[in-house]
Amino acid sequence: MRVRTDVLVIGAGSGGYVAAIKLGKLGKNVLVIEKDGMEGLGGICMNHGCIPSKALILASKFFHDIKDAGEMGINVSGVSLDANKMQDWKNGVVAKLRSGIDFLMKRNNVRWMKGEAVFDSSHSVKINGNPDIDAVDFNYAIVATGALPNTLPGLEFDGQNIISYNEALDLREIPQDLLVVGGGYIAVEMAACYARLGSRVKLVHRREHLLTEYDDDIVNTLQRKMQKDGVEFIFNSNISKVEKIGSRVRVTLENQKQIEVDKVLVAVGVGPNSANLGLNTTTVKLDDKGFIVVDKKMRTTDPRIFAIGDVAGQPLLAHKATKQGKIAAEVIAGRNV
Amino acid sequence: MRVRTDVLVIGAGSGGYVAAIKLGKLGKNVLVIEKDGMEGLGGICMNHGCIPSKALILASKFFHDIKDAGEMGINVSGVSLDANKMQDWKNGVVAKLRSGIDFLMKRNNVRWMKGEAVFDSSHSVKINGNPDIDAVDFNYAIVATGALPNTLPGLEFDGQNIISYNEALDLREIPQDLLVVGGGYIAVEMAACYARLGSRVKLVHRREHLLTEYDDDIVNTLQRKMQKDGVEFIFNSNISKVEKIGSRVRVTLENQKQIEVDKVLVAVGVGPNSANLGLNTTTVKLDDKGFIVVDKKMRTTDPRIFAIGDVAGQPLLAHKATKQGKIAAEVIAGRNV
Repeated sequence: MRVRTDVLVIGAGSGGYVAAIKLGKLGKNVLVIEKDGMEGLGGICMNHGCIPSKALILASKFFHDIKDAGEMGINVSGVSLDANKMQDWKNGVVAKLRSGIDFLMKRNNVRWMKGEAVFDSSHSVKINGNPDIDAVDFNYAIVATGALPNTLPGLEFDGQNIISYNEALDLREIPQDLLVVGGGYIAVEMAACYARLGSRVKLVHRREHLLTEYDDDIVNTLQRKMQKDGVEFIFNSNISKVEKIGSRVRVTLENQKQIEVDKVLVAVGVGPNSANLGLNTTTVKLDDKGFIVVDKKMRTTDPRIFAIGDVAGQPLLAHKATKQGKIAAEVIAGRNV
Repeated sequence: MRVRTDVLVIGAGSGGYVAAIKLGKLGKNVLVIEKDGMEGLGGICMNHGCIPSKALILASKFFHDIKDAGEMGINVSGVSLDANKMQDWKNGVVAKLRSGIDFLMKRNNVRWMKGEAVFDSSHSVKINGNPDIDAVDFNYAIVATGALPNTLPGLEFDGQNIISYNEALDLREIPQDLLVVGGGYIAVEMAACYARLGSRVKLVHRREHLLTEYDDDIVNTLQRKMQKDGVEFIFNSNISKVEKIGSRVRVTLENQKQIEVDKVLVAVGVGPNSANLGLNTTTVKLDDKGFIVVDKKMRTTDPRIFAIGDVAGQPLLAHKATKQGKIAAEVIAGRNV
């Protein structure tokens, strides 16, 4: 079946769902396509980022702090971690918030469905993975497809030993030995979290310290705290080789030092999710890193197509996507912004 | 012995110690007199307010949250509270921060000593409670004597059954039944804290809800949370009678309802600590509530005497005292402020 909508929103993350709700409130006919269906509402922030990471960090901090509770007069005789139950709890937190997005969209007359949208012209997309709909014709489209984790040559994700933040937030067994590659906030959060949950954590980073965009005072304090919690830093270092050894991996650093671990979390930033959208059938321009080029009103170089959030460039943060979603919606609805 | 100083600071709380350090940095000869000695450095905030309350609130929250930790996969057995140890820990937190004030004063050439200063003229005080010094002559004095808890007729503090925040922060046994009288932030903090630590808490307040100066949205959320944690509110109510029944007290409300509890915490605000300073030997003026009248440069009506912090009027908050301490110091040092 082929359907028609005034505005098509591709992706239901922090940018897309907000744009759709705003359009619904402004009386526009709007359809959202989300490739992961219900599990994708809220995008990376909700499902593989801010929300689940904060839940796990809270649990890890609690688990860690209980050991020192005796100091403050709170005596505990036995503490143990059930990683499975922790995951169920975290997933429950996420599912509850996610259902709020579903509720808000429906209340604001936003239709949404599961599917993968691929442009085949400047006014239509094909839909894969939805039994009911094959194609959508639109007057306007908003591309809000977000980001994908960057990979490193030789460290391609296998979902088992070499993982991204996606798997790191879903582990149902705490790794004995975890190697984190990277020094940005995802690397920091996951290294600190798993160290508190009992993993032996090493962190390899090519720079001389963590979070190079922050003040030294903050970074030094953070590093000291993480070291106290058991994280071992290996700075100014790159990985030269990775081999599978049974269920584990052996990592060789540039200086020939070898490390054997259960999991390697590669957290070296994210890039735009723009490669497989069929944008070559439109007049949308990408920059040299693959981000969609937009103006201040979130217009791409194709007059019918807008782009917002991570896929539209730096900074790659949920709140920016939300703000851009509102702008795109208002511009499409003919409002001055 | 009689000593002479350029500037005398009376009270080493959030206002006094900051003023003294600032004066020390500006090269002035300065002497601080603190009636409680080492135990008084930092004033109410450090010793009977912000700091110890936050420590106890942290411990109470932890003790309370441990019971639900199983939900997040953290299994805990045998949880018990040692109120004695909790007090020792809290006192340790306070003592460590307090020693920092001692260190900072010494490093900035501020002399300080224990004693109670009582004016006997516009340029001198008598000192009680210090074996080495009887009197101090000064060019300038800064009165930074802070506040005292208000009392209610018939509910005078006895330190055992009828207590103020001073004793409430030092209890080495968690009361089975605690009655809190008042609806400001001290009442709220202590009611919430002891409810989490296991006391059956009732809160009597003459107004229709807590924290009347805050938005309803905030207050309603807070009240629901406190009720969930076991606090019972009795609003629009006053106490008409209090009787000792063995080691407990029986409280009769205006509507004749009777409540039996171990402790009654009276938290109905604080007033200026200005009554016993001998200010009648100076030309310092008080307002009708006993606060010292000051101008924007913290000058009193006596040209040699300044006043800062709680004793100098609303708002009665540590940060205001600190700011006023800096202003008074700079004015005395001849700087434009």
